[in-house]
Amino acid sequence: MKKSLIALAVLAASGAAMAQSSVTLYGIADAGVTYLNGGSNWSGVTSGNNKTSRLGFRGVEDLGGGLKANFVLEGGINLDTGDGKSGGATDNGFQFKRQSTVGLAGNFGEVRLGRELTAAYNATARYDVFGSVGLAQSRLWADGGVVDANANANANANAKAVTTNQRISNAVTYVSPSFSGFKVGVNYGFGEVAGGNSKSGYMGAGLMYDNGPLSLGLGLERLKSGANSVATSDIDAWSLGGSYDFGVAKVLAGYRESKVDVAAGENKRLGYYVAATAPVGPGLVRASYNRYENKLAGFKEKADQFGLGYVYSLSKRTSVYGTYAYIKNKDGANLYTLGSSSQGSLKTNGSQQGVQVGITHAF
Amino acid sequence: MKKSLIALAVLAASGAAMAQSSVTLYGIADAGVTYLNGGSNWSGVTSGNNKTSRLGFRGVEDLGGGLKANFVLEGGINLDTGDGKSGGATDNGFQFKRQSTVGLAGNFGEVRLGRELTAAYNATARYDVFGSVGLAQSRLWADGGVVDANANANANANAKAVTTNQRISNAVTYVSPSFSGFKVGVNYGFGEVAGGNSKSGYMGAGLMYDNGPLSLGLGLERLKSGANSVATSDIDAWSLGGSYDFGVAKVLAGYRESKVDVAAGENKRLGYYVAATAPVGPGLVRASYNRYENKLAGFKEKADQFGLGYVYSLSKRTSVYGTYAYIKNKDGANLYTLGSSSQGSLKTNGSQQGVQVGITHAF
Amino acid sequence: MKKSLIALAVLAASGAAMAQSSVTLYGIADAGVTYLNGGSNWSGVTSGNNKTSRLGFRGVEDLGGGLKANFVLEGGINLDTGDGKSGGATDNGFQFKRQSTVGLAGNFGEVRLGRELTAAYNATARYDVFGSVGLAQSRLWADGGVVDANANANANANAKAVTTNQRISNAVTYVSPSFSGFKVGVNYGFGEVAGGNSKSGYMGAGLMYDNGPLSLGLGLERLKSGANSVATSDIDAWSLGGSYDFGVAKVLAGYRESKVDVAAGENKRLGYYVAATAPVGPGLVRASYNRYENKLAGFKEKADQFGLGYVYSLSKRTSVYGTYAYIKNKDGANLYTLGSSSQGSLKTNGSQQGVQVGITHAF
Repeated sequence: MKKSLIALAVLAASGAAMAQSSVTLYGIADAGVTYLNGGSNWSGVTSGNNKTSRLGFRGVEDLGGGLKANFVLEGGINLDTGDGKSGGATDNGFQFKRQSTVGLAGNFGEVRLGRELTAAYNATARYDVFGSVGLAQSRLWADGGVVDANANANANANAKAVTTNQRISNAVTYVSPSFSGFKVGVNYGFGEVAGGNSKSGYMGAGLMYDNGPLSLGLGLERLKSGANSVATSDIDAWSLGGSYDFGVAKVLAGYRESKVDVAAGENKRLGYYVAATAPVGPGLVRASYNRYENKLAGFKEKADQFGLGYVYSLSKRTSVYGTYAYIKNKDGANLYTLGSSSQGSLKTNGSQQGVQVGITHAF
Repeated sequence: MKKSLIALAVLAASGAAMAQSSVTLYGIADAGVTYLNGGSNWSGVTSGNNKTSRLGFRGVEDLGGGLKANFVLEGGINLDTGDGKSGGATDNGFQFKRQSTVGLAGNFGEVRLGRELTAAYNATARYDVFGSVGLAQSRLWADGGVVDANANANANANAKAVTTNQRISNAVTYVSPSFSGFKVGVNYGFGEVAGGNSKSGYMGAGLMYDNGPLSLGLGLERLKSGANSVATSDIDAWSLGGSYDFGVAKVLAGYRESKVDVAAGENKRLGYYVAATAPVGPGLVRASYNRYENKLAGFKEKADQFGLGYVYSLSKRTSVYGTYAYIKNKDGANLYTLGSSSQGSLKTNGSQQGVQVGITHAF
Repeated sequence: MKKSLIALAVLAASGAAMAQSSVTLYGIADAGVTYLNGGSNWSGVTSGNNKTSRLGFRGVEDLGGGLKANFVLEGGINLDTGDGKSGGATDNGFQFKRQSTVGLAGNFGEVRLGRELTAAYNATARYDVFGSVGLAQSRLWADGGVVDANANANANANAKAVTTNQRISNAVTYVSPSFSGFKVGVNYGFGEVAGGNSKSGYMGAGLMYDNGPLSLGLGLERLKSGANSVATSDIDAWSLGGSYDFGVAKVLAGYRESKVDVAAGENKRLGYYVAATAPVGPGLVRASYNRYENKLAGFKEKADQFGLGYVYSLSKRTSVYGTYAYIKNKDGANLYTLGSSSQGSLKTNGSQQGVQVGITHAF
């Protein structure tokens, strides 16, 4: 999947001394055709339905004494248009918004500086069988998920560092070594507000336990209210997930909730899901059921989502996939559509169906 | 020109198992000095006068049974300023706007998903001896060419997918194998308008015939009107070109026309050209004559363009070039200038001359 | 630090012919934690405190007869957020704004076209022991330095080519070979204003002398007034610097001044500094004192800046660093803060202190 680029000293005329390097160029190209059947149907070519299309550079240097330096520069790509997928403004060019870090690793674990996925996300989002992408992804851990980070983003440009609950900018991250299957990660994301750091910023932790067929994860997050004119209190979220691999099938489940006080009262969002994967032929069947709930000051919104997919491996690096998803919003409120707002609307009963077929190629 | 990056598994402590990769890093750096003699003279350093400056990554994976997976990520660069050349907004950073595709190839041909040059463009633009770049390029197939795609772009952001007639986003592309010298390519570009796909989008085809010294190409294109508030009908274009290599010289010719109904009537644009190349010393002499005509509801605009150039090869990868171009607009209308609008204006008689000298280095 | 990517022809099934390449992928990942103690304190993760975080591609091709072709594509990165550091608009994606050139080198020296550091900057900024980055950098040669280029930028978009005194776009550059330790570089940056090139653009030269422990540099620059509605005359700057390496320590000094006539009178800025480095253990101690003065039509602004730092090398490629900086503005005017405007303000007495600790990893 990932290649190292051999380091060859550029030798003008003399012999060929070879110096091994640790710079790795890697990426994923994933695109497919999506059809959405809703109030107004939509079809198109979409990028990153099975895995996010990306390009990255990374390296590790052995400093001796068990110490290693490393870096990662990874950016998302909208393969359908060639744009950078920055998670921010549209059409803004390729950026290393997926990960941009420099770190030191040793027996003590690893310390990294920069932007990356949060430890809380890493601990529990891994139980989403659709990998947080595509029509059938769980929205619990995805962008636009339970922590209402966009409100924060709009309120204060400096808080941009902490606007998604998937990734965190301006962060110091610590990841522990594995102790008897346990591993912990911690992020502190600076709010970078002059005079107001004690009231802004992000802090989160993820605890992972992996032992044979059993895997468990716990995520804890706090997005401080200081730089957030919408919220009147900190936004807190916690998530719990786990999986057990029975061999013929793997069963997974997850729960996440977040809450924040706003002017109208407490805004609480929660969701849970159960899922399974099973190897069938050269590929993998994936199925999941998600429930989303939004409770804002006395009224409730709910939605149910079903997903079913198959990933057929042509090689270790290349696969084709098909995914079906169905969503049904309840209680008269429309919490989610399957695609983005420009990709068609819900039917009048609050439901929508979608299908994606495509190809994933890792390099 | 193009290099493969060797894939070496990063080996922490053990031996040196080598895994061959197919990731290729490639590009072109082209810059020169341009002088334009018009109503107000202009001079400057310009990028991509002989070949567009670019950086790309691509790879092919053999899946066995004659099947191959491939990807291409290629973006343009304004070498004079370091900006990305996205073909869209200015100063928007590096983007993979030249090509971003993932595909599968086999005996059946090749299917690709993403953004790329249209098959119609590929079939006939190859007869422009100046390669669609620089002062002397033919405008028939270039951006700002005959199909008025910008009108579309302004009218509907979703139609952005189909705003140029060189490249198409959100596309499914099929390219056939070669049968007795014949090869066909087809693009379908989704309009990606909710509820309106049947009335939007792009479809085009290119037919190529290559047999010894003879080469022929036919291009057919339709940009649907649905997402286009300016046009009251679909925009249709066709182009035809060919070349014959006599050895001492190669002769080339091309024709392209497009039309669309707008409020004021039918807007028809057409153009043709004859050109020749001849190897002289270690380089190539290139010459072309272009005629452009614009017929909008009863009035006509015309322009003649001459181009003469020499490309002197310093190696297979590196060459220096000089190009002279002259344009003369007629009938009192000013259809084209040689450079962009900020690069000086036409003389009062509608003419302009320009010279470019520079260097092209492929890597 | 820099690696060559080996060029291997992608061999589907046959033997393994190896074609040596000269494409080099390289970069720096630098991030740290910064604390600023001012009117309102600020803390955060910052990128490029010791060396600017960057990613680059470059290559050299031997054309025979002593002639070589080369290219450089290098862009800055804000490692704390993953954004491109373009020196221009925020959040604009990765761009090759540090250097984007194509060139030819031979016995005559080297000619390059594109964007790069000015020869004047290269000649004298090299005596800043903090390398023009981080809290303790000398502002004499840095962006926002003595030549008031931003005024120019705002006044005319076409003058963007010449808006910084560190780098120049749209430039033709000549660098001489070294004669008895002497080397000269010259830049001409086109103003690219239609009809007005004689009154716009940039020209500059740098003279370097390097002989054993002694190093001297002289920089001369003129930013023409034509495209500058603020200035009523050309902006002229000159700088002088030098260093002597005593072995136990290296002593460095520099001076720079620039002036321009504006409506209110002559605006003259000048500054000087003395600095020293000394190897201590596996690292380097760096110390500097800077004085900045701004004289505009009868009133004066002054600031003193002290910097002290240590760079501890973990390997040739990786180091950790700590930097302390103090600034004190005088005469009631606030000429500079240590960080950017969003990173806290000065104390009421015009002073500010800051500390940075971080890691630099070159690849």
